Amino acid sequence: MGRATDRRSVLRIDLDAATDGRAAVRRRDSLSVEEPLEIRVGPAGPGRRRPLAVTMRTPGDDLDLAIGFLLTEGLIRSADDVHTAQLCAGAETPNTYNVVDVVLAPGVPEPTTDPARNFYTTSSCGVCGKASIDAVRTRSVFAVADDPVGVPAAVLAELPGRLRAAQKGFDHTGGLHAAGLFTADGELVALREDVGRHNAVDKVVGWAVRERRLPLAGHVLLVSGRASFELTQKAWMAGVPVLAAVSAPSTLAADLAQEAGLTLVGFLRGRTMNVYAHPHRVTV
Amino acid sequence: MGRATDRRSVLRIDLDAATDGRAAVRRRDSLSVEEPLEIRVGPAGPGRRRPLAVTMRTPGDDLDLAIGFLLTEGLIRSADDVHTAQLCAGAETPNTYNVVDVVLAPGVPEPTTDPARNFYTTSSCGVCGKASIDAVRTRSVFAVADDPVGVPAAVLAELPGRLRAAQKGFDHTGGLHAAGLFTADGELVALREDVGRHNAVDKVVGWAVRERRLPLAGHVLLVSGRASFELTQKAWMAGVPVLAAVSAPSTLAADLAQEAGLTLVGFLRGRTMNVYAHPHRVTV
Repeated sequence: MGRATDRRSVLRIDLDAATDGRAAVRRRDSLSVEEPLEIRVGPAGPGRRRPLAVTMRTPGDDLDLAIGFLLTEGLIRSADDVHTAQLCAGAETPNTYNVVDVVLAPGVPEPTTDPARNFYTTSSCGVCGKASIDAVRTRSVFAVADDPVGVPAAVLAELPGRLRAAQKGFDHTGGLHAAGLFTADGELVALREDVGRHNAVDKVVGWAVRERRLPLAGHVLLVSGRASFELTQKAWMAGVPVLAAVSAPSTLAADLAQEAGLTLVGFLRGRTMNVYAHPHRVTV
Repeated sequence: MGRATDRRSVLRIDLDAATDGRAAVRRRDSLSVEEPLEIRVGPAGPGRRRPLAVTMRTPGDDLDLAIGFLLTEGLIRSADDVHTAQLCAGAETPNTYNVVDVVLAPGVPEPTTDPARNFYTTSSCGVCGKASIDAVRTRSVFAVADDPVGVPAAVLAELPGRLRAAQKGFDHTGGLHAAGLFTADGELVALREDVGRHNAVDKVVGWAVRERRLPLAGHVLLVSGRASFELTQKAWMAGVPVLAAVSAPSTLAADLAQEAGLTLVGFLRGRTMNVYAHPHRVTV
């Protein structure tokens, strides 16, 4: 497993320090590590594993990332659908090897095309934009809409602070997104960090898949940045009933949450927040 | 062209307002619009256009986005390589149609596979991670390293404020990334906003391609968020010698900038900044 941060030489400039002649100072600084991870998938047996996707990620929890990606893309439904997942031979050398090899369980259909982009094949000129949106959508097997959980707004307000307190990488680099899984009474269950916010969520989901905790009924997923369509979809795929974001959601995130029956909270800052879909789960 | 923002019903919760009984208030709020854009590419003549990529973007400047994407992915080199680019028939209806159709000029090779993911075919188990990194790389035709431009640190310090002042969407929604192209003396040349930061950069680059301004020698590209490998590569592909980010860079962004001869500035805030590669262009 690679390191999450690495050091580089940096020229630090402080214009207000110019008067004493030290406006620019060389120093070493910690940066968030970003490296490509190739996810390969193949059937059980001697069949060839085919490259499925490459994601630019922060090394660490790579098996969780691969499994979470497969689940949130709708290619597997549980840990039972995975025969083995392993770093490719030679992967022991930190940061020089970036391939995860997933062998599907017998009977699990192999992706026939690039599923990260398989909406290519389903949208066509002459069909309205809804077709494109449909096509980028995966289908959740979990009925998030029926999840009866209630979360006090006062608990939600505590979560960003708890997430930050638990983050290791951010304090060093300021460059890592975080995704945190909490119980409805605010207990942190899992935290993952990554340069890519979608990767941070996939790492949390992949961990939950491997722990056989899906669907994540009764849980809150908190993300450190904005709430996009993609993140909302990942939450739905994992059966999370409440997605909270420190920053803004997009229209499509709000619309998908509304349709999925998922509670979407945004601008969760201090003692305030906005609820963009299904506010009945947030108790004041 | 679609709108960049749209309104949704929101439950605003302010726990500190609870004492006067109005802790939760229904209101309408502006959100950043996010919709899929499918980019199709085909050869001149009656040949079929094939779906190349779908990006989740904020509608507007979609032709620039498509052309910028093609350039930063290395599929075209200039406006001469594009015969026509147009919104698909029916696209006049705002926000219901999301396809751009690009016809390449005669002689321009059609992408033979999915170029957004064509590193699939070049990395293989048994080759070290460098192969993957090589494979996600595109090749810039511009010698950024030779760009003699110098930019005063005092000018750089002014840019984030100028970018924010010129942003329209952010003030409404808090959800849009911005990319701004500046001259070396701090004049704003082009500004684009998007829910995706890579899209914002592609929109700026696509505009520059269509205006026949490439390479963007002597310019500074400012991004409102973090500096990733992908954004650094896009800057290099467009011939930008100085990339500045309001937030943190990743290791791979710093390493690529170093290799490309591109000046990378991060944490550009107030009167301070860090220079991660080629600081000789920043004059103090």
